[in-house]
Amino acid sequence: MRVKHKKWADPLMAAHPEMLVEDAAQFRGKWESRFPKKQPLHLEVGMGKGQFIIGMAKAHPEINFIGLEIQRTVAAIALKKALPEELPNLQLICGEGEELETYFASGEVQQLYLNFSDPWPKKRHAKRRLTYHTFLAEYQQILVPGGKVELKTDNMGFFEFSLQSMNNFGMHFDGVWLDLHHSDENDHNVETEYEHKFASKGQPIYKLTATMPEK
Amino acid sequence: MRVKHKKWADPLMAAHPEMLVEDAAQFRGKWESRFPKKQPLHLEVGMGKGQFIIGMAKAHPEINFIGLEIQRTVAAIALKKALPEELPNLQLICGEGEELETYFASGEVQQLYLNFSDPWPKKRHAKRRLTYHTFLAEYQQILVPGGKVELKTDNMGFFEFSLQSMNNFGMHFDGVWLDLHHSDENDHNVETEYEHKFASKGQPIYKLTATMPEK
Repeated sequence: MRVKHKKWADPLMAAHPEMLVEDAAQFRGKWESRFPKKQPLHLEVGMGKGQFIIGMAKAHPEINFIGLEIQRTVAAIALKKALPEELPNLQLICGEGEELETYFASGEVQQLYLNFSDPWPKKRHAKRRLTYHTFLAEYQQILVPGGKVELKTDNMGFFEFSLQSMNNFGMHFDGVWLDLHHSDENDHNVETEYEHKFASKGQPIYKLTATMPEK
Repeated sequence: MRVKHKKWADPLMAAHPEMLVEDAAQFRGKWESRFPKKQPLHLEVGMGKGQFIIGMAKAHPEINFIGLEIQRTVAAIALKKALPEELPNLQLICGEGEELETYFASGEVQQLYLNFSDPWPKKRHAKRRLTYHTFLAEYQQILVPGGKVELKTDNMGFFEFSLQSMNNFGMHFDGVWLDLHHSDENDHNVETEYEHKFASKGQPIYKLTATMPEK
């Protein structure tokens, strides 16, 4: 997702350190301290403009959520949306997805979401896909034993790749949907911005939920 | 697939014991003796009218093929088609897919094909699906260590189920295609009767190739 630079982005982020963290490494192993309640922690890698993670935080007050986004302006848009909701169980991070291990201690996260990640369709860019085995190894580091990954995408090639890569990594599939919006699973589905756009055009949305193998 | 009984079916089958085996158990562990060449053995479970297995036997003289079909009339139609091709590397069996272990010795088969199997869409019939774990355990018995399973279907629900079931069984995915006919993989694809019909209507064909785990 490319967005234009917004003048208000940096000042807004600077004004809300209670909600958006820029130096996430300082809270490694201590994320619990950022939330009023001790409860499971779920992380979205690449939250975009935040519709999904905000929706999830509203729907699941019994879970603490963190949305991570690399692009500053995009993270600022999510922050702007999140602020009026006053959700005590939501924190945002502006930072690199590649540095997850510096942000989270081993086993600090219960569940991880990958929504409409960049498919990097060219073979020579396969290493950049967020389901490439090197990324899966990072997720395994920060997830609890038996931690889960939920993936949604509209991109067929990326889904094919992810099925194979996550299988080959030894992940246990808990559910596979090749047309999420026409399945029972959709009853409790929280949409992302992208998802809403693509699904309303009639394109199928793919979903996979899977459990990490023990290290 | 339901077909009308054909009067010529039984006499044709009886006249060609060199090509179609009705008491497959007698060749358990001795299938090699039915072929002129000692080479890998591939088995299609549910060959239908035989288009796929005949096409494969033509395309791959370096492999011995067996097509298995439970319905007598359907098996007879396959036999009728196969006879004029005079393929030394093709044998047919009329018999139950559930009795694979009585037909083949442990490790006798190198690769197994499941094409457009009955999807049994109702949950209470899940046990009848040819990718239910009890069937996978049978395939594992007759396959060599590291043996492969290739699956094609047009049925989304059956493919979702099979991805999950084969993953949960510990099978290693070698390739996943969610629209086979619009992929590079289609270059060497041998079609089945069903496949030709469905694909020509523009419906996607799903394919999975996977390796059995060690017992």
